[in-house]
Amino acid sequence: MNKPRVVAFQGEHGAYSEQAALNHFGITVETLPCRALQKVFGVVEDGGAEMGVIPVENSLEGSINLTYDLLLESNLRIIGEIKHRITHCLVGPPGTRLEDIKVVYSHPQALAQCSVFLDGLGIQTSPTYDTAGSVKMIKERRLPNSAAIASEHAAEIYGLTVLRKGIEDYSQNFTRFFVISKHEPEPSGRDKTTIVFGTKHAPGALHRALGELADRGINLTKIESRPVRTTPWEYYFFVDFEGHSKDYKCAEALEALRASATFLKVLGSYPRATDDI
Amino acid sequence: MNKPRVVAFQGEHGAYSEQAALNHFGITVETLPCRALQKVFGVVEDGGAEMGVIPVENSLEGSINLTYDLLLESNLRIIGEIKHRITHCLVGPPGTRLEDIKVVYSHPQALAQCSVFLDGLGIQTSPTYDTAGSVKMIKERRLPNSAAIASEHAAEIYGLTVLRKGIEDYSQNFTRFFVISKHEPEPSGRDKTTIVFGTKHAPGALHRALGELADRGINLTKIESRPVRTTPWEYYFFVDFEGHSKDYKCAEALEALRASATFLKVLGSYPRATDDI
Repeated sequence: MNKPRVVAFQGEHGAYSEQAALNHFGITVETLPCRALQKVFGVVEDGGAEMGVIPVENSLEGSINLTYDLLLESNLRIIGEIKHRITHCLVGPPGTRLEDIKVVYSHPQALAQCSVFLDGLGIQTSPTYDTAGSVKMIKERRLPNSAAIASEHAAEIYGLTVLRKGIEDYSQNFTRFFVISKHEPEPSGRDKTTIVFGTKHAPGALHRALGELADRGINLTKIESRPVRTTPWEYYFFVDFEGHSKDYKCAEALEALRASATFLKVLGSYPRATDDI
Repeated sequence: MNKPRVVAFQGEHGAYSEQAALNHFGITVETLPCRALQKVFGVVEDGGAEMGVIPVENSLEGSINLTYDLLLESNLRIIGEIKHRITHCLVGPPGTRLEDIKVVYSHPQALAQCSVFLDGLGIQTSPTYDTAGSVKMIKERRLPNSAAIASEHAAEIYGLTVLRKGIEDYSQNFTRFFVISKHEPEPSGRDKTTIVFGTKHAPGALHRALGELADRGINLTKIESRPVRTTPWEYYFFVDFEGHSKDYKCAEALEALRASATFLKVLGSYPRATDDI
Protein backbone atom coordinates (compact mmCIF):
# COMPACT_ATOMS: atom_id res chain seq x y z
CA MET A 1 0.00 0.00 0.00
CA ASN A 2 1.36 3.45 -0.89
CA LYS A 3 1.75 5.70 2.07
CA PRO A 4 -0.98 8.35 2.09
CA ARG A 5 -0.37 12.00 2.89
CA VAL A 6 -3.63 12.44 4.84
CA VAL A 7 -5.66 9.77 6.67
CA ALA A 8 -9.15 10.54 8.06
CA PHE A 9 -10.49 8.95 11.26
CA GLN A 10 -13.57 9.29 13.47
CA GLY A 11 -13.09 11.04 16.78
CA GLU A 12 -10.81 13.69 18.22
CA HIS A 13 -7.00 13.68 18.25
CA GLY A 14 -5.93 10.91 20.62
CA ALA A 15 -8.68 8.49 19.46
CA TYR A 16 -7.82 4.80 19.16
CA SER A 17 -8.52 5.02 15.41
CA GLU A 18 -5.85 7.72 15.11
CA GLN A 19 -3.37 5.63 17.11
CA ALA A 20 -4.06 2.66 14.82
CA ALA A 21 -3.47 4.87 11.76
CA LEU A 22 -0.19 6.26 13.16
CA ASN A 23 1.07 2.77 14.10
CA HIS A 24 0.21 1.50 10.62
CA PHE A 25 1.41 4.39 8.43
CA GLY A 26 4.07 5.92 10.69
CA ILE A 27 3.93 9.09 12.75
CA THR A 28 4.71 11.41 9.82
CA VAL A 29 1.27 10.86 8.23
CA GLU A 30 -1.20 13.71 8.66
CA THR A 31 -4.37 12.64 10.51
CA LEU A 32 -7.72 14.33 9.93
CA PRO A 33 -10.29 14.04 12.77
CA CYS A 34 -13.96 13.65 11.73
CA ARG A 35 -16.89 13.90 14.13
CA ALA A 36 -18.94 11.12 12.51
CA LEU A 37 -18.07 7.89 10.74
CA GLN A 38 -20.15 9.08 7.74
CA LYS A 39 -17.81 12.06 7.48
CA VAL A 40 -14.75 9.75 7.18
CA PHE A 41 -16.34 8.13 4.11
CA GLY A 42 -17.32 11.58 2.76
CA VAL A 43 -13.87 13.11 3.12
CA VAL A 44 -12.19 10.16 1.36
CA GLU A 45 -14.78 10.30 -1.45
CA ASP A 46 -14.20 14.05 -1.87
CA GLY A 47 -10.41 13.66 -1.90
CA GLY A 48 -9.89 15.56 1.38
CA ALA A 49 -7.99 12.47 2.56
CA GLU A 50 -6.53 9.66 0.43
CA MET A 51 -7.50 7.06 3.01
CA GLY A 52 -9.71 6.56 6.04
CA VAL A 53 -9.25 4.24 9.04
CA ILE A 54 -12.58 2.90 10.35
CA PRO A 55 -13.30 0.46 13.22
CA VAL A 56 -14.95 -2.83 12.14
CA GLU A 57 -15.10 -4.93 15.27
CA ASN A 58 -13.83 -5.17 18.80
CA SER A 59 -12.80 -8.51 20.25
CA LEU A 60 -15.03 -7.96 23.32
CA GLU A 61 -18.02 -5.99 22.06
CA GLY A 62 -18.33 -7.29 18.51
CA SER A 63 -19.06 -5.54 15.25
CA ILE A 64 -19.53 -1.82 14.64
CA ASN A 65 -22.89 -1.97 12.86
CA LEU A 66 -22.67 1.51 11.38
CA THR A 67 -19.38 0.64 9.65
CA TYR A 68 -21.06 -2.31 7.91
CA ASP A 69 -24.09 -0.23 6.91
CA LEU A 70 -21.83 2.49 5.46
CA LEU A 71 -19.64 -0.02 3.57
CA LEU A 72 -22.78 -1.43 1.94
CA GLU A 73 -23.77 2.00 0.59
CA SER A 74 -20.32 3.34 -0.29
CA ASN A 75 -18.28 2.83 -3.45
CA LEU A 76 -15.00 3.09 -1.55
CA ARG A 77 -12.82 -0.03 -1.40
CA ILE A 78 -11.37 -1.77 1.63
CA ILE A 79 -7.61 -1.71 0.96
CA GLY A 80 -6.12 -2.63 4.32
CA GLU A 81 -6.69 -4.17 7.74
CA ILE A 82 -5.20 -3.11 11.10
CA LYS A 83 -5.47 -4.88 14.46
CA HIS A 84 -4.81 -2.61 17.41
CA ARG A 85 -4.49 -3.44 21.12
CA ILE A 86 -6.82 -1.31 23.27
CA THR A 87 -5.66 -0.31 26.78
CA HIS A 88 -8.26 1.85 28.49
CA CYS A 89 -7.29 4.45 31.08
CA LEU A 90 -9.39 6.42 33.52
CA VAL A 91 -8.33 10.00 32.83
CA GLY A 92 -9.09 13.03 35.01
CA PRO A 93 -7.94 16.61 35.60
CA PRO A 94 -4.51 16.93 37.29
CA GLY A 95 -4.78 16.66 41.07
CA THR A 96 -7.98 14.58 40.96
CA ARG A 97 -8.15 11.45 43.10
CA LEU A 98 -10.14 8.35 42.15
CA GLU A 99 -12.51 8.90 45.10
CA ASP A 100 -13.37 12.42 43.82
CA ILE A 101 -14.88 11.08 40.58
CA LYS A 102 -18.67 11.26 40.37
CA VAL A 103 -19.25 10.78 36.62
CA VAL A 104 -17.33 8.96 33.89
CA TYR A 105 -17.70 10.02 30.23
CA SER A 106 -16.81 7.89 27.22
CA HIS A 107 -17.99 6.16 24.08
CA PRO A 108 -20.64 3.50 24.91
CA GLN A 109 -18.34 0.67 23.71
CA ALA A 110 -15.53 1.86 26.02
CA LEU A 111 -17.95 2.12 28.97
CA ALA A 112 -19.18 -1.41 28.18
CA GLN A 113 -15.63 -2.76 28.02
CA CYS A 114 -14.86 -1.43 31.52
CA SER A 115 -18.15 -2.41 33.15
CA VAL A 116 -16.59 -4.49 35.97
CA PHE A 117 -14.30 -1.62 37.01
CA LEU A 118 -17.12 0.96 36.72
CA ASP A 119 -19.64 -1.19 38.60
CA GLY A 120 -17.02 -1.54 41.35
CA LEU A 121 -16.74 2.25 41.66
CA GLY A 122 -20.54 2.53 41.59
CA ILE A 123 -20.47 5.93 39.89
CA GLN A 124 -22.60 7.41 37.13
CA THR A 125 -21.61 6.92 33.49
CA SER A 126 -22.48 9.22 30.62
CA PRO A 127 -22.15 8.06 27.00
CA THR A 128 -20.48 10.41 24.50
CA TYR A 129 -19.50 10.20 20.83
CA ASP A 130 -15.79 9.59 21.38
CA THR A 131 -13.20 8.46 23.95
CA ALA A 132 -10.64 11.20 23.26
CA GLY A 133 -13.49 13.68 22.73
CA SER A 134 -14.54 13.05 26.35
CA VAL A 135 -11.05 13.94 27.56
CA LYS A 136 -11.13 17.11 25.46
CA MET A 137 -14.58 18.02 26.85
CA ILE A 138 -13.48 17.61 30.48
CA LYS A 139 -10.45 19.78 29.75
CA GLU A 140 -12.30 22.54 27.87
CA ARG A 141 -15.35 22.76 30.12
CA ARG A 142 -13.23 22.27 33.28
CA LEU A 143 -15.80 19.70 34.47
CA PRO A 144 -15.37 18.99 38.19
CA ASN A 145 -15.45 15.43 39.64
CA SER A 146 -15.36 14.03 36.11
CA ALA A 147 -13.21 11.47 34.38
CA ALA A 148 -13.09 9.93 30.90
CA ILE A 149 -12.18 6.49 29.63
CA ALA A 150 -9.64 6.92 26.85
CA SER A 151 -6.10 6.08 25.77
CA GLU A 152 -2.97 7.18 27.63
CA HIS A 153 -2.12 9.13 24.47
CA ALA A 154 -5.37 11.14 24.74
CA ALA A 155 -4.49 12.03 28.36
CA GLU A 156 -1.07 13.31 27.21
CA ILE A 157 -2.48 15.37 24.32
CA TYR A 158 -4.96 17.24 26.54
CA GLY A 159 -2.71 17.45 29.63
CA LEU A 160 -4.87 15.29 31.89
CA THR A 161 -3.74 12.64 34.37
CA VAL A 162 -4.08 8.86 34.10
CA LEU A 163 -5.83 7.84 37.35
CA ARG A 164 -5.85 4.13 36.53
CA LYS A 165 -4.49 2.19 33.55
CA GLY A 166 -5.75 -1.10 32.04
CA ILE A 167 -9.28 -0.89 33.46
CA GLU A 168 -10.88 -3.09 30.76
CA ASP A 169 -12.73 -6.24 31.90
CA TYR A 170 -10.64 -8.48 29.63
CA SER A 171 -6.99 -7.78 28.84
CA GLN A 172 -7.34 -9.43 25.41
CA ASN A 173 -8.95 -6.29 24.04
CA PHE A 174 -8.28 -5.61 20.34
CA THR A 175 -10.04 -3.52 17.75
CA ARG A 176 -9.87 -4.37 14.08
CA PHE A 177 -9.91 -1.50 11.58
CA PHE A 178 -10.35 -1.30 7.82
CA VAL A 179 -8.41 1.15 5.67
CA ILE A 180 -10.69 2.57 2.95
CA SER A 181 -9.72 4.35 -0.25
CA LYS A 182 -10.84 4.97 -3.83
CA HIS A 183 -8.04 2.85 -5.28
CA GLU A 184 -7.55 -0.88 -4.73
CA PRO A 185 -4.03 -2.31 -4.41
CA GLU A 186 -2.62 -5.23 -6.42
CA PRO A 187 -2.56 -8.68 -4.75
CA SER A 188 0.13 -8.98 -2.07
CA GLY A 189 0.08 -12.78 -1.89
CA ARG A 190 -1.23 -12.64 1.69
CA ASP A 191 -4.68 -11.14 1.23
CA LYS A 192 -8.19 -11.23 2.60
CA THR A 193 -11.41 -10.29 0.83
CA THR A 194 -14.65 -8.85 2.23
CA ILE A 195 -17.95 -9.31 0.40
CA VAL A 196 -21.62 -8.66 1.14
CA PHE A 197 -24.47 -10.68 -0.34
CA GLY A 198 -28.15 -11.48 0.02
CA THR A 199 -29.68 -14.95 -0.34
CA LYS A 200 -33.05 -16.18 -1.57
CA HIS A 201 -35.52 -16.82 1.27
CA ALA A 202 -35.26 -20.62 0.96
CA PRO A 203 -34.10 -23.44 3.29
CA GLY A 204 -30.36 -24.01 3.02
CA ALA A 205 -29.69 -20.83 0.99
CA LEU A 206 -26.97 -19.52 3.33
CA HIS A 207 -25.45 -23.00 3.67
CA ARG A 208 -25.21 -23.32 -0.12
CA ALA A 209 -23.68 -19.84 -0.41
CA LEU A 210 -20.98 -20.65 2.17
CA GLY A 211 -20.45 -23.96 0.36
CA GLU A 212 -19.08 -22.06 -2.64
CA LEU A 213 -16.19 -21.04 -0.37
CA ALA A 214 -15.88 -24.22 1.71
CA ASP A 215 -15.93 -26.55 -1.32
CA ARG A 216 -12.93 -24.70 -2.72
CA GLY A 217 -11.02 -24.81 0.58
CA ILE A 218 -11.37 -21.04 1.07
CA ASN A 219 -11.20 -20.13 4.77
CA LEU A 220 -14.05 -17.94 6.02
CA THR A 221 -12.73 -15.79 8.88
CA LYS A 222 -15.84 -13.74 9.78
CA ILE A 223 -19.56 -13.62 9.04
CA GLU A 224 -21.83 -10.79 10.09
CA SER A 225 -25.52 -10.38 9.34
CA ARG A 226 -27.23 -6.99 9.01
CA PRO A 227 -30.94 -6.40 8.42
CA VAL A 228 -32.29 -5.47 5.00
CA ARG A 229 -34.09 -2.31 6.10
CA THR A 230 -36.79 -2.44 3.45
CA THR A 231 -37.76 -6.07 4.21
CA PRO A 232 -38.14 -7.11 7.87
CA TRP A 233 -36.38 -10.38 8.86
CA GLU A 234 -34.25 -10.54 5.72
CA TYR A 235 -30.50 -10.10 6.05
CA TYR A 236 -27.36 -9.16 4.20
CA PHE A 237 -24.33 -11.29 5.03
CA PHE A 238 -20.90 -9.71 5.26
CA VAL A 239 -18.22 -12.37 4.86
CA ASP A 240 -14.43 -12.11 5.17
CA PHE A 241 -12.34 -14.89 3.65
CA GLU A 242 -8.68 -15.58 2.98
CA GLY A 243 -7.47 -14.90 -0.56
CA HIS A 244 -7.69 -12.15 -3.18
CA SER A 245 -10.71 -11.72 -5.46
CA LYS A 246 -8.33 -12.10 -8.42
CA ASP A 247 -7.03 -15.50 -7.19
CA TYR A 248 -8.36 -18.23 -9.44
CA LYS A 249 -10.37 -20.19 -6.86
CA CYS A 250 -11.73 -17.04 -5.18
CA ALA A 251 -12.81 -15.60 -8.54
CA GLU A 252 -14.56 -18.89 -9.32
CA ALA A 253 -16.32 -18.91 -5.92
CA LEU A 254 -17.44 -15.30 -6.40
CA GLU A 255 -18.82 -16.11 -9.84
CA ALA A 256 -20.82 -19.05 -8.43
CA LEU A 257 -22.03 -16.93 -5.50
CA ARG A 258 -23.10 -14.13 -7.83
CA ALA A 259 -25.20 -16.59 -9.82
CA SER A 260 -27.15 -17.83 -6.77
CA ALA A 261 -27.25 -14.69 -4.58
CA THR A 262 -29.96 -12.04 -4.88
CA PHE A 263 -27.16 -9.48 -4.62
CA LEU A 264 -23.37 -9.55 -4.28
CA LYS A 265 -20.79 -6.79 -3.85
CA VAL A 266 -17.05 -7.24 -3.38
CA LEU A 267 -16.02 -4.58 -0.86
CA GLY A 268 -12.31 -5.12 -1.37
CA SER A 269 -9.28 -7.40 -1.27
CA TYR A 270 -6.46 -6.26 0.98
CA PRO A 271 -3.29 -7.47 2.73
CA ARG A 272 -4.06 -9.25 6.02
CA ALA A 273 -3.06 -7.37 9.18
CA THR A 274 0.60 -8.07 9.93
CA ASP A 275 -0.07 -7.86 13.67
CA ASP A 276 -2.32 -10.91 13.30
CA ILE A 277 -2.82 -12.64 16.62
CA MET B 1 -48.06 -20.76 27.06
CA ASN B 2 -49.67 -20.28 30.46
CA LYS B 3 -50.51 -16.71 31.20
CA PRO B 4 -48.11 -15.27 33.77
CA ARG B 5 -49.17 -13.05 36.66
CA VAL B 6 -46.11 -10.77 36.44
CA VAL B 7 -43.92 -10.02 33.39
CA ALA B 8 -40.65 -8.07 33.72
CA PHE B 9 -39.37 -5.72 30.99
CA GLN B 10 -36.51 -3.26 30.55
CA GLY B 11 -37.42 0.42 30.67
CA GLU B 12 -40.07 2.58 32.25
CA HIS B 13 -43.85 2.19 31.99
CA GLY B 14 -44.76 3.02 28.39
CA ALA B 15 -41.68 1.27 26.90
CA TYR B 16 -42.12 -0.67 23.65
CA SER B 17 -41.19 -3.87 25.53
CA GLU B 18 -44.11 -3.28 27.89
CA GLN B 19 -46.47 -2.65 24.97
CA ALA B 20 -45.31 -5.88 23.34
CA ALA B 21 -45.94 -7.76 26.62
CA LEU B 22 -49.44 -6.27 27.03
CA ASN B 23 -50.36 -7.05 23.41
CA HIS B 24 -49.13 -10.61 23.82
CA PHE B 25 -50.47 -11.49 27.28
CA GLY B 26 -53.46 -9.12 27.50
CA ILE B 27 -53.81 -5.91 29.47
CA THR B 28 -54.61 -7.64 32.76
CA VAL B 29 -51.04 -8.91 33.20
CA GLU B 30 -48.93 -7.06 35.76
CA THR B 31 -45.80 -5.50 34.22
CA LEU B 32 -42.62 -4.94 36.21
CA PRO B 33 -40.23 -2.23 34.90
CA CYS B 34 -36.47 -2.92 35.27
CA ARG B 35 -33.78 -0.34 34.65
CA ALA B 36 -31.32 -2.76 32.99
CA LEU B 37 -31.70 -5.82 30.79
CA GLN B 38 -29.56 -7.77 33.29
CA LYS B 39 -32.20 -6.99 35.92
CA VAL B 40 -34.95 -8.59 33.77
CA PHE B 41 -32.98 -11.84 33.75
CA GLY B 42 -32.30 -11.51 37.50
CA VAL B 43 -35.92 -10.90 38.48
CA VAL B 44 -37.13 -13.92 36.47
CA GLU B 45 -34.38 -16.09 37.99
CA ASP B 46 -35.34 -14.95 41.51
CA GLY B 47 -39.05 -15.56 40.91
CA GLY B 48 -40.01 -11.85 41.16
CA ALA B 49 -41.64 -12.33 37.76
CA GLU B 50 -42.63 -15.58 36.05
CA MET B 51 -41.55 -14.27 32.65
CA GLY B 52 -39.52 -11.50 31.05
CA VAL B 53 -39.92 -9.85 27.64
CA ILE B 54 -36.56 -8.88 26.09
CA PRO B 55 -35.78 -7.26 22.71
CA VAL B 56 -33.71 -9.44 20.34
CA GLU B 57 -33.54 -7.50 17.09
CA ASN B 58 -35.02 -4.56 15.26
CA SER B 59 -35.77 -4.79 11.56
CA LEU B 60 -33.84 -1.56 10.89
CA GLU B 61 -31.01 -1.52 13.42
CA GLY B 62 -30.31 -5.23 13.80
CA SER B 63 -29.55 -7.35 16.84
CA ILE B 64 -29.45 -6.27 20.47
CA ASN B 65 -25.98 -7.56 21.33
CA LEU B 66 -26.49 -7.44 25.08
CA THR B 67 -29.53 -9.73 24.83
CA TYR B 68 -27.42 -12.36 23.05
CA ASP B 69 -24.57 -12.04 25.55
CA LEU B 70 -27.00 -12.44 28.49
CA LEU B 71 -28.78 -15.44 26.89
CA LEU B 72 -25.40 -17.15 26.54
CA GLU B 73 -24.69 -16.81 30.27
CA SER B 74 -28.20 -17.41 31.64
CA ASN B 75 -29.96 -20.70 32.40
CA LEU B 76 -33.37 -19.22 31.57
CA ARG B 77 -35.19 -20.64 28.56
CA ILE B 78 -36.66 -18.82 25.58
CA ILE B 79 -40.32 -19.82 25.66
CA GLY B 80 -41.96 -17.33 23.28
CA GLU B 81 -41.46 -14.85 20.46
CA ILE B 82 -43.28 -11.55 19.84
CA LYS B 83 -43.04 -9.26 16.82
CA HIS B 84 -44.16 -5.71 17.55
CA ARG B 85 -44.62 -2.77 15.18
CA ILE B 86 -42.71 0.33 16.31
CA THR B 87 -44.21 3.78 15.60
CA HIS B 88 -41.99 6.51 17.01
CA CYS B 89 -43.41 9.85 18.15
CA LEU B 90 -41.71 13.10 19.04
CA VAL B 91 -43.11 13.87 22.46
CA GLY B 92 -42.85 17.19 24.30
CA PRO B 93 -44.41 19.14 27.20
CA PRO B 94 -47.96 20.40 26.50
CA GLY B 95 -47.92 23.72 24.64
CA THR B 96 -44.51 23.08 23.06
CA ARG B 97 -44.13 23.71 19.32
CA LEU B 98 -41.75 21.76 17.09
CA GLU B 99 -39.65 24.91 16.48
CA ASP B 100 -39.11 25.33 20.26
CA ILE B 101 -37.26 22.02 20.56
CA LYS B 102 -33.49 22.32 21.09
CA VAL B 103 -32.62 18.80 22.32
CA VAL B 104 -34.14 15.36 21.74
CA TYR B 105 -33.65 12.57 24.28
CA SER B 106 -34.10 8.85 23.60
CA HIS B 107 -32.51 5.41 23.49
CA PRO B 108 -29.65 5.34 20.92
CA GLN B 109 -31.54 2.81 18.74
CA ALA B 110 -34.62 5.08 18.61
CA LEU B 111 -32.44 8.10 17.75
CA ALA B 112 -30.77 6.04 14.99
CA GLN B 113 -34.16 4.94 13.60
CA CYS B 114 -35.29 8.57 13.22
CA SER B 115 -32.02 9.97 11.87
CA VAL B 116 -33.53 11.46 8.68
CA PHE B 117 -36.20 13.37 10.65
CA LEU B 118 -33.67 14.49 13.29
CA ASP B 119 -31.05 15.55 10.72
CA GLY B 120 -33.79 17.60 9.05
CA LEU B 121 -34.50 19.44 12.29
CA GLY B 122 -30.78 19.91 12.84
CA ILE B 123 -31.10 19.80 16.63
CA GLN B 124 -28.97 18.19 19.30
CA THR B 125 -29.65 14.60 20.36
CA SER B 126 -28.85 13.09 23.73
CA PRO B 127 -28.79 9.31 24.24
CA THR B 128 -30.56 7.88 27.30
CA TYR B 129 -31.23 4.38 28.63
CA ASP B 130 -34.89 4.21 27.57
CA THR B 131 -37.51 5.78 25.26
CA ALA B 132 -40.31 6.04 27.85
CA GLY B 133 -37.73 6.92 30.51
CA SER B 134 -36.84 10.01 28.46
CA VAL B 135 -40.50 11.11 28.49
CA LYS B 136 -40.62 10.57 32.25
CA MET B 137 -37.40 12.57 32.73
CA ILE B 138 -38.69 15.55 30.70
CA LYS B 139 -41.88 15.48 32.76
CA GLU B 140 -40.22 15.15 36.18
CA ARG B 141 -37.37 17.60 35.62
CA ARG B 142 -39.62 20.02 33.66
CA LEU B 143 -36.87 20.28 31.03
CA PRO B 144 -37.47 23.27 28.75
CA ASN B 145 -37.11 23.07 24.92
CA SER B 146 -36.81 19.30 25.19
CA ALA B 147 -38.54 16.41 23.48
CA ALA B 148 -38.26 12.63 23.58
CA ILE B 149 -38.68 9.92 20.98
CA ALA B 150 -41.08 7.33 22.39
CA SER B 151 -44.43 5.62 21.84
CA GLU B 152 -47.78 7.42 21.79
CA HIS B 153 -48.61 5.32 24.87
CA ALA B 154 -45.62 6.76 26.78
CA ALA B 155 -46.85 10.31 25.96
CA GLU B 156 -50.30 9.43 27.39
CA ILE B 157 -48.91 7.86 30.58
CA TYR B 158 -46.81 10.91 31.47
CA GLY B 159 -49.27 13.54 30.16
CA LEU B 160 -47.05 14.88 27.40
CA THR B 161 -48.05 15.87 23.85
CA VAL B 162 -47.29 14.08 20.60
CA LEU B 163 -45.65 16.75 18.41
CA ARG B 164 -45.16 14.45 15.42
CA LYS B 165 -46.09 10.79 14.87
CA GLY B 166 -44.39 8.20 12.65
CA ILE B 167 -41.01 9.93 12.48
CA GLU B 168 -39.01 6.76 11.78
CA ASP B 169 -36.89 6.64 8.59
CA TYR B 170 -38.56 3.43 7.40
CA SER B 171 -42.21 2.59 8.11
CA GLN B 172 -41.44 -1.15 8.14
CA ASN B 173 -40.09 -0.86 11.67
CA PHE B 174 -40.59 -3.97 13.83
CA THR B 175 -38.89 -5.23 16.95
CA ARG B 176 -38.70 -8.91 17.75
CA PHE B 177 -38.82 -9.93 21.42
CA PHE B 178 -38.14 -13.18 23.26
CA VAL B 179 -40.18 -14.27 26.25
CA ILE B 180 -37.89 -15.86 28.87
CA SER B 181 -38.82 -18.10 31.79
CA LYS B 182 -37.52 -20.92 33.97
CA HIS B 183 -39.96 -23.45 32.50
CA GLU B 184 -40.09 -24.58 28.87
CA PRO B 185 -43.46 -25.29 27.20
CA GLU B 186 -44.36 -28.49 25.34
CA PRO B 187 -44.17 -28.46 21.50
CA SER B 188 -47.01 -26.48 19.89
CA GLY B 189 -46.54 -27.92 16.41
CA ARG B 190 -45.51 -24.50 15.08
CA ASP B 191 -42.21 -23.89 16.86
CA LYS B 192 -38.84 -22.32 16.42
CA THR B 193 -35.62 -23.14 18.26
CA THR B 194 -32.66 -20.93 19.18
CA ILE B 195 -29.22 -22.41 19.79
CA VAL B 196 -25.71 -21.08 20.31
CA PHE B 197 -22.56 -22.96 19.34
CA GLY B 198 -18.84 -22.56 18.72
CA THR B 199 -16.90 -24.18 15.87
CA LYS B 200 -13.36 -25.43 15.53
CA HIS B 201 -11.00 -22.92 13.91
CA ALA B 202 -10.84 -24.82 10.59
CA PRO B 203 -11.83 -24.05 6.97
CA GLY B 204 -15.47 -24.94 6.30
CA ALA B 205 -16.34 -25.48 10.00
CA LEU B 206 -19.35 -23.12 9.97
CA HIS B 207 -20.48 -24.47 6.59
CA ARG B 208 -20.42 -28.04 7.93
CA ALA B 209 -22.32 -26.99 11.07
CA LEU B 210 -25.07 -25.31 9.04
CA GLY B 211 -25.11 -28.39 6.82
CA GLU B 212 -26.47 -30.43 9.74
CA LEU B 213 -29.60 -28.27 9.47
CA ALA B 214 -29.71 -27.78 5.68
CA ASP B 215 -29.18 -31.48 4.91
CA ARG B 216 -32.28 -32.28 6.97
CA GLY B 217 -34.39 -29.58 5.30
CA ILE B 218 -34.48 -27.49 8.49
CA ASN B 219 -35.01 -23.80 7.70
CA LEU B 220 -32.51 -21.43 9.33
CA THR B 221 -34.26 -18.10 9.93
CA LYS B 222 -31.47 -16.09 11.58
CA ILE B 223 -27.75 -16.30 12.29
CA GLU B 224 -25.87 -13.91 14.54
CA SER B 225 -22.21 -14.00 15.50
CA ARG B 226 -20.87 -12.67 18.79
CA PRO B 227 -17.21 -12.55 19.82
CA VAL B 228 -15.73 -15.09 22.24
CA ARG B 229 -14.36 -12.58 24.74
CA THR B 230 -11.49 -14.72 25.95
CA THR B 231 -10.18 -15.45 22.43
CA PRO B 232 -9.95 -12.57 19.93
CA TRP B 233 -11.39 -13.25 16.44
CA GLU B 234 -13.29 -16.38 17.51
CA TYR B 235 -17.07 -16.29 17.50
CA TYR B 236 -20.17 -17.90 18.95
CA PHE B 237 -22.98 -18.39 16.45
CA PHE B 238 -26.58 -17.89 17.54
CA VAL B 239 -28.91 -19.67 15.13
CA ASP B 240 -32.72 -19.69 14.96
CA PHE B 241 -34.38 -22.47 12.97
CA GLU B 242 -37.88 -23.77 12.39
CA GLY B 243 -38.93 -26.79 14.45
CA HIS B 244 -38.81 -27.94 18.08
CA SER B 245 -35.71 -29.47 19.67
CA LYS B 246 -37.83 -32.56 20.43
CA ASP B 247 -38.82 -33.04 16.75
CA TYR B 248 -37.03 -36.09 15.37
CA LYS B 249 -35.02 -34.38 12.64
CA CYS B 250 -34.14 -31.38 14.84
CA ALA B 251 -32.99 -33.67 17.65
CA GLU B 252 -30.84 -35.58 15.16
CA ALA B 253 -29.34 -32.34 13.78
CA LEU B 254 -28.59 -31.11 17.31
CA GLU B 255 -26.87 -34.39 18.17
CA ALA B 256 -24.69 -34.17 15.06
CA LEU B 257 -23.92 -30.50 15.78
CA ARG B 258 -22.99 -31.29 19.36
CA ALA B 259 -20.50 -33.90 18.17
CA SER B 260 -18.65 -31.47 15.87
CA ALA B 261 -19.04 -28.17 17.74
CA THR B 262 -16.63 -27.00 20.45
CA PHE B 263 -19.71 -25.99 22.46
CA LEU B 264 -23.50 -26.13 21.98
CA LYS B 265 -26.38 -24.85 24.09
CA VAL B 266 -30.07 -25.02 23.23
CA LEU B 267 -31.56 -21.74 24.46
CA GLY B 268 -35.15 -22.84 23.93
CA SER B 269 -37.91 -24.05 21.64
CA TYR B 270 -40.99 -21.83 21.48
CA PRO B 271 -44.12 -21.14 19.41
CA ARG B 272 -43.40 -18.86 16.45
CA ALA B 273 -44.81 -15.33 16.70
CA THR B 274 -48.41 -15.34 15.47
CA ASP B 275 -48.03 -11.81 14.12
CA ASP B 276 -45.44 -13.19 11.71
CA ILE B 277 -44.94 -10.91 8.71
